[in-house]
Amino acid sequence: MKKVDINKGEALYEGKAKIVYATDDPSLVIQHFKDSATAFNAEKVGTISGKGEANAMISRHLFEMLETKGIPTQYVGFQPPTDLITRKLDMLPVEVVVRNVAAGSLSKRIGYPEGKPLKSTLVEFYLKDDDLGDPLLTIDHIRELDLITDSQVEALKKLGLQINDVLLKFFLECGLRLIDYKLEFGVADGQIYLGDEISPDTCRLWDVGTGEKLDKDRFRQDLGGVEEAYREVLKRIESN
Amino acid sequence: MKKVDINKGEALYEGKAKIVYATDDPSLVIQHFKDSATAFNAEKVGTISGKGEANAMISRHLFEMLETKGIPTQYVGFQPPTDLITRKLDMLPVEVVVRNVAAGSLSKRIGYPEGKPLKSTLVEFYLKDDDLGDPLLTIDHIRELDLITDSQVEALKKLGLQINDVLLKFFLECGLRLIDYKLEFGVADGQIYLGDEISPDTCRLWDVGTGEKLDKDRFRQDLGGVEEAYREVLKRIESN
Repeated sequence: MKKVDINKGEALYEGKAKIVYATDDPSLVIQHFKDSATAFNAEKVGTISGKGEANAMISRHLFEMLETKGIPTQYVGFQPPTDLITRKLDMLPVEVVVRNVAAGSLSKRIGYPEGKPLKSTLVEFYLKDDDLGDPLLTIDHIRELDLITDSQVEALKKLGLQINDVLLKFFLECGLRLIDYKLEFGVADGQIYLGDEISPDTCRLWDVGTGEKLDKDRFRQDLGGVEEAYREVLKRIESN
Repeated sequence: MKKVDINKGEALYEGKAKIVYATDDPSLVIQHFKDSATAFNAEKVGTISGKGEANAMISRHLFEMLETKGIPTQYVGFQPPTDLITRKLDMLPVEVVVRNVAAGSLSKRIGYPEGKPLKSTLVEFYLKDDDLGDPLLTIDHIRELDLITDSQVEALKKLGLQINDVLLKFFLECGLRLIDYKLEFGVADGQIYLGDEISPDTCRLWDVGTGEKLDKDRFRQDLGGVEEAYREVLKRIESN
């Protein structure tokens, strides 16, 4: 486990689940993971006790693992219990959603029942814009809005599929089916890095045996056992 | 004006704005244009007096004109006042939306104010599925659903842009700005034909001088003067 001693500066940005702080080093920021939870574009708000700690630990573990597989990530180090030290990125203004199995907005969009496996892994782009409800974009919308270049689109698709190969296999070893998840990317010194987090906030993870949901859908759908689900994912990842 | 004498057989299909009838000739169907109007996926229902006649005449005129520009259409002949004789097609299960200026669902999606010109003409694909609300699709969704082939996607994009070149110029000569419109295509004997209709039901058309809306948005938005708008579009097209 890589730790870095660095001083937390002013808060640069507060999001729904994290606060980003400046540090002594202009190339680094600290991401503080919060317990607060939101869903449905912040229409539903709550607290999941211990989520910040679990998600920081889960993200750290997954980012370190992805680095060993050749995926450049923004992860630099860990300040227990809830803070990650990360490379400061210029975030790209799209969310990349990778899907292996139909659920959530894809089920609504194309009429697939939740749980139907997709013929092949789907990579979708969404506009990062809460006011607009993070809408789905086609490549032509991305061009019209001049959000990212065509070559960045291709690079993100390729990275999404590479990351998926690694995560699918890893989560399966943890007894978890990786249904879908959201990725965010950013640029530093001309290179694209995986940023943000990978956690039960941003993934759908179902128990391989029982199909039980072990992710934020427990909060979205009022299924109970939310804290336990996050702890269970962390436990499985750490013992793998 | 091409007319064809042919007998109307049984109703094969009744849609929101048209009824399709069989004919003596198995390769031909009759499309009867109705006065009934729906909007917002049939949540709003009404009647626009004279719409059937206006839209049949407008579609006939536009399809004949597109044929002279090399666009294959299903149009065969006209039976006044409300019926078009058309080639029977296997309709492709997507709607093709061509946009020159932001309006409607695109404005909502990407946050452009209504009336903002697009950098370049946008061609979008939507699933023809009322139950799902005709959702936007990416190329990857089209592949997942196996709706049409990649080469059909490319052919429809190309046809959409070719049709747009013709229609933009033609409507401008009629003093109308072609904001956006929906196209449907079908296949007969292995060839793709433009089908369905092109009318103020399926286009947004704004007066070049005043910006006045002369299309179904008058019905959607309760702007009044709905019948007059359809008649005005027909008058301008016929006198052009």
